[in-house]
Amino acid sequence: MPADGETRPPQTRPLQPLASLAPLFAPRSVAVIGASADPSRIGGRPIAYALRAGFAGALYPVNPNREEIQGVKAWPSVAAIPEPIDFALLAIPAAGVPQALRDCAAKGAKAAVIFTAGFAEVGEAGLALQAEILEIARAHGIRLLGPNCLGLFNAAIGHCPTFTSGIEAAMPVPGRVGLVTQSGAYGTHLLNMARDRRIGVRQWVSTGNEADITAPECIGWMAASDEIDLIGVYMEGVNDRPALFRALAAARAARKPVVVMKVGRSEVGAQAAASHTASLAGSDASFEAALRRFGALRAKTTEEMLDILYAASLSPLPKGRRLGVLTASGGAGVLIADAAEEAGLSLPALPEAAQTAILAANPLASARNPVDVTAGVLNDFSKVISATSELRGAGYDMTAAFFTSWTASPVVGPKLREALLAGLDGDVDHPFAMICQGDAEVMASWERLGMMTFEDPSRAIHAMGALARLAEAFDAPEETPPEAPAGVSLPRETLSELAAKRLLARAGIPIPDETLATTPQEAADAAARLGTPCVLKIVSPDLPHKTEVGGVRLNVPPLEMETAAREMLESVARNAPHARIEGLLVGPMAGEGVELIVGARRDPVMGPVMLIGLGGVFTEVLKDVAVELAPLSPAQALAALNGLRGAALLHGARGKAPVDVQAAAEAISRLSALAAADPDGFESLEINPLLVMPEGVLALDALIEPRKE
Amino acid sequence: MPADGETRPPQTRPLQPLASLAPLFAPRSVAVIGASADPSRIGGRPIAYALRAGFAGALYPVNPNREEIQGVKAWPSVAAIPEPIDFALLAIPAAGVPQALRDCAAKGAKAAVIFTAGFAEVGEAGLALQAEILEIARAHGIRLLGPNCLGLFNAAIGHCPTFTSGIEAAMPVPGRVGLVTQSGAYGTHLLNMARDRRIGVRQWVSTGNEADITAPECIGWMAASDEIDLIGVYMEGVNDRPALFRALAAARAARKPVVVMKVGRSEVGAQAAASHTASLAGSDASFEAALRRFGALRAKTTEEMLDILYAASLSPLPKGRRLGVLTASGGAGVLIADAAEEAGLSLPALPEAAQTAILAANPLASARNPVDVTAGVLNDFSKVISATSELRGAGYDMTAAFFTSWTASPVVGPKLREALLAGLDGDVDHPFAMICQGDAEVMASWERLGMMTFEDPSRAIHAMGALARLAEAFDAPEETPPEAPAGVSLPRETLSELAAKRLLARAGIPIPDETLATTPQEAADAAARLGTPCVLKIVSPDLPHKTEVGGVRLNVPPLEMETAAREMLESVARNAPHARIEGLLVGPMAGEGVELIVGARRDPVMGPVMLIGLGGVFTEVLKDVAVELAPLSPAQALAALNGLRGAALLHGARGKAPVDVQAAAEAISRLSALAAADPDGFESLEINPLLVMPEGVLALDALIEPRKE
Repeated sequence: MPADGETRPPQTRPLQPLASLAPLFAPRSVAVIGASADPSRIGGRPIAYALRAGFAGALYPVNPNREEIQGVKAWPSVAAIPEPIDFALLAIPAAGVPQALRDCAAKGAKAAVIFTAGFAEVGEAGLALQAEILEIARAHGIRLLGPNCLGLFNAAIGHCPTFTSGIEAAMPVPGRVGLVTQSGAYGTHLLNMARDRRIGVRQWVSTGNEADITAPECIGWMAASDEIDLIGVYMEGVNDRPALFRALAAARAARKPVVVMKVGRSEVGAQAAASHTASLAGSDASFEAALRRFGALRAKTTEEMLDILYAASLSPLPKGRRLGVLTASGGAGVLIADAAEEAGLSLPALPEAAQTAILAANPLASARNPVDVTAGVLNDFSKVISATSELRGAGYDMTAAFFTSWTASPVVGPKLREALLAGLDGDVDHPFAMICQGDAEVMASWERLGMMTFEDPSRAIHAMGALARLAEAFDAPEETPPEAPAGVSLPRETLSELAAKRLLARAGIPIPDETLATTPQEAADAAARLGTPCVLKIVSPDLPHKTEVGGVRLNVPPLEMETAAREMLESVARNAPHARIEGLLVGPMAGEGVELIVGARRDPVMGPVMLIGLGGVFTEVLKDVAVELAPLSPAQALAALNGLRGAALLHGARGKAPVDVQAAAEAISRLSALAAADPDGFESLEINPLLVMPEGVLALDALIEPRKE
Repeated sequence: MPADGETRPPQTRPLQPLASLAPLFAPRSVAVIGASADPSRIGGRPIAYALRAGFAGALYPVNPNREEIQGVKAWPSVAAIPEPIDFALLAIPAAGVPQALRDCAAKGAKAAVIFTAGFAEVGEAGLALQAEILEIARAHGIRLLGPNCLGLFNAAIGHCPTFTSGIEAAMPVPGRVGLVTQSGAYGTHLLNMARDRRIGVRQWVSTGNEADITAPECIGWMAASDEIDLIGVYMEGVNDRPALFRALAAARAARKPVVVMKVGRSEVGAQAAASHTASLAGSDASFEAALRRFGALRAKTTEEMLDILYAASLSPLPKGRRLGVLTASGGAGVLIADAAEEAGLSLPALPEAAQTAILAANPLASARNPVDVTAGVLNDFSKVISATSELRGAGYDMTAAFFTSWTASPVVGPKLREALLAGLDGDVDHPFAMICQGDAEVMASWERLGMMTFEDPSRAIHAMGALARLAEAFDAPEETPPEAPAGVSLPRETLSELAAKRLLARAGIPIPDETLATTPQEAADAAARLGTPCVLKIVSPDLPHKTEVGGVRLNVPPLEMETAAREMLESVARNAPHARIEGLLVGPMAGEGVELIVGARRDPVMGPVMLIGLGGVFTEVLKDVAVELAPLSPAQALAALNGLRGAALLHGARGKAPVDVQAAAEAISRLSALAAADPDGFESLEINPLLVMPEGVLALDALIEPRKE
């Protein structure tokens, strides 16, 4: 791969309708160019898979040397196929791909998958070849998957144009999960893990070089598909932001959970990703902000992703975060309580009457929550019935039950099941995790009741925490993005502090009552008008760091203003003789409050994002900064502020009065609207500090860095 | 269980030699009181297990109603057994336990396990019964395991006095792992998970109510055992601190990893634990400090604990944190790099020459590190050999290899193995994780080469991070604890600020040059002597919060001191008329620096601990506080300081000069020595603030709270 090559060029892609992916996922006829009689070879596997899966459409192996392939009549060329084809699979050397694609176009193909490697990922020549095939595809209205990918499958119709070994052992269990993976190899790893976990993957697609079709488009397809209820995504880079945002918005509107594992989180990982995919990385925090905005979940590990897909494919989403715990081991109850706190779930106590009822039946039990029925119930499962029934009656949003290997026993297992179902009145109508042991058949028997099974209690609880987050994201009210301020546009060159603040003021962000003085006398007049100790600052577009040249003085009494102003002009002239001086800014000393740093910057991948932090050590030492997509509503800005580690300072920590977070959120929202209205028109917008007072806010300083070109 | 009952009373326990546990873990003869002919019953399982495991010693089932039990001659009573017995197992109702114990004592038993429940965990009557059996045991020199426990096993000799279902399916695979679990039920869960993971548990013990033998004693036994190389621990509470510290120290000295899962980490979990075990919880941070001090690892989840035990049972410990990554999937390489950063492992690039060599053989590879050989090597495994060999030559401390399901293929798997071994020169001499897929036999075949196998890349890397932490703990130089300051003892009543600081000064902690003045004139004289602006403070043992009564003034010029002192005395007399006034403290204004809060307090479980934090928002808002056992050496104090989230402030963040962290560490160490020398003689010792200057430190204020009784 060339050091600066681009496997997935971050290009402006034409917007294509989702329906254009129908011939990819659900064709009626498939031609396999480079078909092999050997079912273990790349050109042979797709035919073997299609035959085993019972592909309902027409299958046309193309191979000039054979009459039939794996029992199917073969054709010497694409041209020889007697019928039109919807879909073509190309498993031939790179050099032959352009002509083959033209041949397929002549037969009416509307989608093609190219397994072949040797395109953008191998350097200049490959890049050119990739551009050529993309041009052919676009000229003929063919949607292209790959090149350099492992293909896809749609289990519902037995459509398996892939050579992944992830379905070699068996097709996935029937289910309603869609999986989109940029990496074919890691996709295969995931497919194997998903099958072992009994997660029913109905559609899977690996997008490879993404010459045409991108992972976000495939997410969009699945979000719109009647056959898919939840979507797992493995990503290495994003080259198609608009499609990603459309897809995530559509999935949320359809209440379909999207769980994303994006690698390159760490610095060293991002470097490795850049050398692997040559995608523009963007910042990981911006990517996470995008997922959060659209209610999608980020999974950090493969198992976490599969746990969430597993849980969401078996369970309804919970109505809240209240967890009831039923256990036969006190220790497991404690462990579960630990995990619940970490996952943000609460364990409210059972009502007194319910506790009394449980203890009446089972004096050795702990009845609060966790409810520990103790191993003594092995002799009397009616105690499990009563405890389960009391928990159910209390209306917890979720239940976790720990019965270790009881489930694996042919004697105890059925008794336990009967007792739990009796306690539940036969109805598993909320997320219910059985934390237990047994082989796949044991686990599946509980899943058929609508229960999740986990062996590790912590994983069960974290998966339920994810379900709660999904429910909250789907149920959150739609936020109206703030409107762009009318008549305010970002400058094309650097503004002085005063001009920048006045622009912010026109955008609705409060600034101090300041006067621009051009002489020491004018400064003295302005101070006299204010009648209070003043701030004096030099105004120059050339001096972003005013303090260093003696360009800032605080607490200047009006009577001393003229002298102070004169001294400042002399100091600046001495220290920065070439700076253009526009004048002196005189304003009142600001009151007490908490200082925020609020900025907007352009993320190369995710577009304009907001950075919001407390001033001082919080931003500089602790990196305690919220990153959010711009624009964001005041409510979203408020949530970001309250998510800061130092948020307590805003609410009156350390004996201080609470400050006006609502006004701060308004100002942040307005700045974000300014950034979003002209997303490519700036490098950064910064208010530092934004003083948040007990009532109201003031942008005490501002810097607008225009777009560099 | 009674609401305030105590299953494991936190009592002062007599120190017993480890050898006293030999009859428990390795008896020559075993009597089973309450033996059952039914191998599924509690009194029948231990016999069935012993027979299956081939217990080499003598086995005496005791049952008045049977001639033989499960093919073994039975005895009508303990007295009827013709030989002395080492060990007795009691599976009989609680009421019969005292007499049975006496009978066993008469036969020479030196250890007994009591399965029976109905003791301390059920309330007053049970507590009395537990006290009675403990008295009998102590009177006759019997070590007692339980009551209310699931027993233990020692697989090496087929000694299985347990009714856990965790060895029902099979005895554990042979290995050198010891497992100590306070909970029998969770211990069983762990045993099942460990077996599925092919972790060889040789000895397991569940300690139940811990009337006599405690979990820490069992850890100590295993630390001393020639048959155990590493120890896993599941804990709910600690009632035997000295034994825990001895055991952990012994394990570290023997370089035996100890991995501890202690539940009750969270607030709600700690509450649940309190109602479950009624152990004194102590603070979780103190427990963690103890583990850290002794180089033991804390696992947060069951899987994390098993991952570490698994890794440490297969791998040597690494020499450092440098990880080499070999992968057939670029995406997996990025994922691994992400996990490595999180686990604190570094991925240094291969030397240029090695990269060149890899690319010469395999132009499509990425050769930096991760080394991505790409799936192309399926056609030519010599490329795997050369890449592996180059990685080996670079001398990484650990290797992670990702080959997904290639291992599961009967064709590809053997080729891959041959290539890797060739590249390694046949020698797996450092931690090597195969991240791959396949059934248990596939995984075991790689383990036999000395490689770990993992399916989830993140778990593999985190386990290797744990190996690195263990190696560092074992290799760390022994720290000499600071000596108690000679001639300084903690007071039995509250001291004034000045007296407290003078005590600290005698313990070697620098304090400002202050004078105690008894009149305004004396204050003025002291100020004149200093000749600089001064601090003036009221001195009273009754006024811990001086500011609130007007008892602190800063920056007082010498000429204004007399007036200031008079005003202060008036203000205090007005605001706190009953306070005993010892005088006025006059000292120099302190210089620039960073303020720390340093305290010692008594943890009810872990003894004296130090709390160390930065002042202001760091402690109050961010709870950024290090907790360490007292005493700690200056090096340990320095490590604690550098572990603070805000540590950058000490090293010159925000344009300030670095401060004298070494002097701060000395002062902390000295305070810790004071606390450790009289661990029960105080409630808290606090220096707030300890001013750390560019050179030196000063304890600006101090509070010593004597022990309440």
